[in-house]
Amino acid sequence: MEYKGKQLLSQDKFAAYNGIELLELSLGKAKAKMEIQPHHLNGFNIVHGGALFTLADFAFGAASNSHGTMAVSINASISFIKPARQGTLIAEAKEIALHPKLGSYTVHIFDEQNEIIAIFQGMAYRKQEKII
Amino acid sequence: MEYKGKQLLSQDKFAAYNGIELLELSLGKAKAKMEIQPHHLNGFNIVHGGALFTLADFAFGAASNSHGTMAVSINASISFIKPARQGTLIAEAKEIALHPKLGSYTVHIFDEQNEIIAIFQGMAYRKQEKII
Amino acid sequence: MEYKGKQLLSQDKFAAYNGIELLELSLGKAKAKMEIQPHHLNGFNIVHGGALFTLADFAFGAASNSHGTMAVSINASISFIKPARQGTLIAEAKEIALHPKLGSYTVHIFDEQNEIIAIFQGMAYRKQEKII
Amino acid sequence: MEYKGKQLLSQDKFAAYNGIELLELSLGKAKAKMEIQPHHLNGFNIVHGGALFTLADFAFGAASNSHGTMAVSINASISFIKPARQGTLIAEAKEIALHPKLGSYTVHIFDEQNEIIAIFQGMAYRKQEKII
Repeated sequence: MEYKGKQLLSQDKFAAYNGIELLELSLGKAKAKMEIQPHHLNGFNIVHGGALFTLADFAFGAASNSHGTMAVSINASISFIKPARQGTLIAEAKEIALHPKLGSYTVHIFDEQNEIIAIFQGMAYRKQEKII
Repeated sequence: MEYKGKQLLSQDKFAAYNGIELLELSLGKAKAKMEIQPHHLNGFNIVHGGALFTLADFAFGAASNSHGTMAVSINASISFIKPARQGTLIAEAKEIALHPKLGSYTVHIFDEQNEIIAIFQGMAYRKQEKII
Repeated sequence: MEYKGKQLLSQDKFAAYNGIELLELSLGKAKAKMEIQPHHLNGFNIVHGGALFTLADFAFGAASNSHGTMAVSINASISFIKPARQGTLIAEAKEIALHPKLGSYTVHIFDEQNEIIAIFQGMAYRKQEKII
Repeated sequence: MEYKGKQLLSQDKFAAYNGIELLELSLGKAKAKMEIQPHHLNGFNIVHGGALFTLADFAFGAASNSHGTMAVSINASISFIKPARQGTLIAEAKEIALHPKLGSYTVHIFDEQNEIIAIFQGMAYRKQEKII
């Protein structure tokens, strides 16, 4: 097992509280899921932008910490493409660039019909601390 | 009461589940709070980016729906300035521009020392449906 | 020829002034190039962020107007991955989502070694006016 | 004179080529202008998003390098609020946060009627090199 960060992810209390689970993890890549529950919805009865962001951010954090160097999110942008109402959402994060101090990642969120729900672009600052 | 959207906000299940509350609402402006709880933290024991985003997004949604026209978030970016660990966070949203179809909003999140934690920029698409 | 917008692109004075040229155009897709000249550089002697943004924005505009409906940029974010100093840069835009009123596009800029220089995410608002 | 970076700005060839001028510079703050010329326009005869971005990015670069530590842009997002057609545009950059390695800046672009044309949010990575 070359990738790192599984312990970190297992201690992510906000992701756990909101029902987000890691599906796959490899160097610079991660996949996560969120089964839509009533408490994920906003006042319009679609999945809250904050829930979509959290799902994408979790996959981004998994991918950016996979090298074993503590990586913290410094910036992210998200475009909401299509409202989601039910079923399971999948977020796929991939690394676009990796430098000693910075990493850049794109995350796509898909619904069960494999239609794109949101696109997320995140940048991480890599500290010197190692993680396991 | 000229502003709208209170009923909408009261039906935001994701915000309620995550302990986010509306403090103030007026035309194009909103203030919300989130008292940091253990379940808001990530694996580094700082408030999760998704929790910060959700707080900002809630204030943005309140401000953008205050005119009584259904406004949905289409795009947002967030910069994480300083990690938050405890206390109560306040998000203040203000309208930068309002057009018939689009609105643009800036949200600042502050901690109890009034230091800035995150900056959020959101854009809303305004539908024709009216809200109450 | 099913795609539209060639005339529009030919009238883009800012792109022409800065040496940006269209290479390919099809429905929802575009490719553009910029041969790096001394006047593209900033004070650090690397290509200016504004020049990279303009190249990406031009490809985005080409792709978003290819359907024949006037599309204007409302929001964009760009991550600068690697500094560029010389040679020709290529921007490739592709459509991620297309709705009646909104379109979302990702643009990647590559250098001659096919390394990624910048990632751009743009959102367009689609008006009712038709273009040719 | 406590602030730095004036020499750097004077060597910004892309800004000069596009008619952008520094108006004011102090620690963490900068103001720049661009008098709209025909070559700033796009195919719709409004100021090109790339020209607006460049103006904002220049003010951001001035503010972020004002401390004398080389600061390079790593990420920026821009929202286009209102089309600009003529007159002089002013960009005002202010520092939102400054850390040893990162700085965050907001830039507003105004037209001659003092109406907001665009909002820009930029993040800079601060290297160890000193500038004068």
